[in-house]
Amino acid sequence: MPDPSAALEPLADRKRRLVRQRIIEASDELFAARGFDNVSVSDIAARADVGRTTFFRYFGDKQEVVFAQEQQMLDAIAEVAQQEVFPVAQTAIEAVEQLRPIVVGLCERATADLDAYARHRRLLEQHLELRGREALKIQQIGVILGEILRDRGTDEATAVFASQVALACYQTGQRRAKTPASLADETRAAFDQAARLGQRSTPTARV
Amino acid sequence: MPDPSAALEPLADRKRRLVRQRIIEASDELFAARGFDNVSVSDIAARADVGRTTFFRYFGDKQEVVFAQEQQMLDAIAEVAQQEVFPVAQTAIEAVEQLRPIVVGLCERATADLDAYARHRRLLEQHLELRGREALKIQQIGVILGEILRDRGTDEATAVFASQVALACYQTGQRRAKTPASLADETRAAFDQAARLGQRSTPTARV
Repeated sequence: MPDPSAALEPLADRKRRLVRQRIIEASDELFAARGFDNVSVSDIAARADVGRTTFFRYFGDKQEVVFAQEQQMLDAIAEVAQQEVFPVAQTAIEAVEQLRPIVVGLCERATADLDAYARHRRLLEQHLELRGREALKIQQIGVILGEILRDRGTDEATAVFASQVALACYQTGQRRAKTPASLADETRAAFDQAARLGQRSTPTARV
Repeated sequence: MPDPSAALEPLADRKRRLVRQRIIEASDELFAARGFDNVSVSDIAARADVGRTTFFRYFGDKQEVVFAQEQQMLDAIAEVAQQEVFPVAQTAIEAVEQLRPIVVGLCERATADLDAYARHRRLLEQHLELRGREALKIQQIGVILGEILRDRGTDEATAVFASQVALACYQTGQRRAKTPASLADETRAAFDQAARLGQRSTPTARV
């Protein structure tokens, strides 16, 4: 018997989601085929079979499309994280540990499609302006991580510090990962290292 | 008696330095008076009494002028840090501690002229693209910090992690500082907190 409480996605929402997806896929294909600089919003709109006006209802500019998947992941993670019940972190490291599964989860999702992830990185490497956007996006992740902690009752000063340490672990993972497939593991290793940071007696060399 | 070993700055270097400084000052004045978007490279060149070609010999674009002071500071700090002799950091926290005076020094220099610093921050707040550039500049600081550690014999993995933690302390300082005057102190406090991070028995709440 069908579950009457399992609501169907409203048609308008479904339509919006599909149009958005079509724009993202059209952009991906065109950027890969012609290079980011040689693709205009009009090209993307034509390929996605929508008007320019529709494009701008979904995205501010073509740079924004490049980070669309990241933004969706962030929104989803913020939503889930805010619904879960957690004890208030009493120390900075407890706060960092509360962020660990969220950040590692982000890494896992980002690299779930290894080809798409590699394509994305190549695009960023070729474009200074996109790397600037990415750097801002990472700072935005920091803001969201801080908000999650504050929503769970962590004080402001600890939330700011812990969210920045969590970002440092993510950035360390990015830089140490030799292939996209090891991003999540390297990020996990950096969190382990952060958890041992103040223990001066034990060498914190990587294990 | 004059010291014969104290070499005078060669005339060509001195001229370059002064032209560079004139371009920076002209940009600062024009950005403050008319807003970043309403100032062209030609405007800056005219105000600095140089040609457009000369401008582009010194800076890639007008965004780059905004971060000229930061870049000079970075170059100077990297040079000094590489000349000093340090023992090899054996643990991640030792590496972080080696970076502390460099990062706090950067904060002190950046806020030495409080008005100029406040003007700079206002400009960034108004422009997404400049914030993107700033975010990249901060990542570049991370790269330089990592290089300093590697030059001192620290292994690659520790250098990457420690430089990211040092950046996290800087970012924490930026976010906690209520006024530019407290940036260096807040950054110092974040380094203190990082040094206590793994000590689970002691609450790491801010002192």
